Amino acid sequence: MRAIDWVPETTGALGHIRLIDQTCLPDETVVLQVTEVAHLIDSIRRLAVRGAPALGVAGAMGVALATQRMSDNDAHTAISELRAARPTAVNLASGVDIALAAYSEGGPQAALVAALKVRDDDVAACIAMARHGVALLSELLPDLERLTMMTICNTGALAAVEHGTALGVIERLYSDGRLARALVCETRPLLQGSRLTAWELQQMGAPYDVIVDSAAASILTTGDVDAVVVGADRIAANGDTANKIGTFPLALAARYVGVPFVVVAPETTVDLATGSGAEIRVEDRGPDEVCMFRDVRSAPAGSSARNPAFDVTPAQLITAIVTESSIIHLSHGESPAHRLAVRNNHTWEDKA
Amino acid sequence: MRAIDWVPETTGALGHIRLIDQTCLPDETVVLQVTEVAHLIDSIRRLAVRGAPALGVAGAMGVALATQRMSDNDAHTAISELRAARPTAVNLASGVDIALAAYSEGGPQAALVAALKVRDDDVAACIAMARHGVALLSELLPDLERLTMMTICNTGALAAVEHGTALGVIERLYSDGRLARALVCETRPLLQGSRLTAWELQQMGAPYDVIVDSAAASILTTGDVDAVVVGADRIAANGDTANKIGTFPLALAARYVGVPFVVVAPETTVDLATGSGAEIRVEDRGPDEVCMFRDVRSAPAGSSARNPAFDVTPAQLITAIVTESSIIHLSHGESPAHRLAVRNNHTWEDKA
Repeated sequence: MRAIDWVPETTGALGHIRLIDQTCLPDETVVLQVTEVAHLIDSIRRLAVRGAPALGVAGAMGVALATQRMSDNDAHTAISELRAARPTAVNLASGVDIALAAYSEGGPQAALVAALKVRDDDVAACIAMARHGVALLSELLPDLERLTMMTICNTGALAAVEHGTALGVIERLYSDGRLARALVCETRPLLQGSRLTAWELQQMGAPYDVIVDSAAASILTTGDVDAVVVGADRIAANGDTANKIGTFPLALAARYVGVPFVVVAPETTVDLATGSGAEIRVEDRGPDEVCMFRDVRSAPAGSSARNPAFDVTPAQLITAIVTESSIIHLSHGESPAHRLAVRNNHTWEDKA
Repeated sequence: MRAIDWVPETTGALGHIRLIDQTCLPDETVVLQVTEVAHLIDSIRRLAVRGAPALGVAGAMGVALATQRMSDNDAHTAISELRAARPTAVNLASGVDIALAAYSEGGPQAALVAALKVRDDDVAACIAMARHGVALLSELLPDLERLTMMTICNTGALAAVEHGTALGVIERLYSDGRLARALVCETRPLLQGSRLTAWELQQMGAPYDVIVDSAAASILTTGDVDAVVVGADRIAANGDTANKIGTFPLALAARYVGVPFVVVAPETTVDLATGSGAEIRVEDRGPDEVCMFRDVRSAPAGSSARNPAFDVTPAQLITAIVTESSIIHLSHGESPAHRLAVRNNHTWEDKA
């Protein structure tokens, strides 16, 4: 089942959004039928739907929902509120903008068509990333038929629509009969690894072990892990990659033992305006997430905490970056800036 | 207040054991008055008292308690049960054996004297380790008046009697007015860092921040941390050090950024019969600790997990090992085997 999708209603012209409420995982699989924009906004704020690609789809489908069911004025008010539901989520705003532009040109039906295209493009991009990722692993590890893969956070269907980025590569290995086992870092503080990635692997039927984040390094030294794959929040022009906190120590340990470390992310994650990781500001999310474990207190009341939400992995520790359109071999001296410049030149020459 | 101590009773010749129930921390500070060996055994099994040095003291004091209050026969039965209360805790058995040998020679009073000596020796060893640790830091970082220190797990008074090992060094810096801040890795899965070390620092009044274990590496890259100090479960002859899971990635990150990484442990932790870390078997404690925290589930029911209890940090990543009797500069090519051989030669020459 898709993490988020559009359901045409059989009895009329209207449709609605269906999404998995991620706040209930892994305890329960609750599916929400969202027929009102206010409900969608609430779902986004509560993190019932999360993950950059999924939020882009939610934004676009929210415009379709609003314009189908509300007056033009009310729809615009609701859409403004939707667009701002998570101000730091760039994809949410861009999904809204794509569908809203289509609505302005062609009305509600055009908005829906645009929203379905955002969804379908995400599915296609994830399929392409998985294909490139598996090809890269075959190139890097030509002698291995079955691979044991380590990952962190949730980069699966729950963060996208149907497949995911780094976890999409693992899923593809599994469906090809080439996954020996997945090792899932639990991903403190919010436990997206143990709560969401483990749940996705269990749904697939894939073999996996959950580990505490700090066990990853020593497990890598056992030789049991063939490659590490992670997602990305932002990739600088030189290849430095911001991702969930805990990614950088995985890359360090992978380098120490000589295991490939691969970033899998859509090309929209590459930010050529950011020259290197030094320019990336790391957000601190405050002490509560660190001093609690789900709703149980783990540190004395009044404890101070540092809670950086992500870290920056230097390009020199990354073997390659896989996008839907290319494999950027950082370990061969390539960089996103170089690769995109080459491609843009090609495009320019093709047109000339 | 000491984590464990002997309380002479003012109204008679008997005494009892007083200990902090660590299972109630950090929510409540519960102090147990233990007058029966059965209660002590229960406290050890429940982990109300834990930490290798503290268990040694508990074992010796348990013998004093039994021999004061029970017939010789009953005392021997109770002591056998006490000795086996945590079979893998070498210090518990050795504490029992020391006091039992004294009892055989001189009766209950001799057992008590021996138990108090085990306690006092631990206090003295921790004071010496703290002094050597601070001296080493002054040597390594001569320009820094105040230091920001990072640590993992609980190596404080709660694991010993009054001061602790690695946390003893931080305590000493604090009492000398030289601690800028302590950064405490929460130490999944059992959270001894956030539950116990943060509690100890709060009791001292020392400034600290709790962090998730996977944030340690990126915080080290900010330049905010001056040194990392950790304890040890076992130190091999070449200096490879087994300690709480998560220690090895701290050492990797410290080396990456050039921050000193110091092991602080009593000389009893050095095991010359173990040549290197490759000979240390790492115990897996099963999935429950990883998939739960205090009765709250974090991974789907039925999830598999790997749960190595400790990891092995290669000697090449350790700046120095501090014991109560010496500073072993691994980064200068020294090793525990070399250092102890030198000292044993000296002793032999002194006697000759």
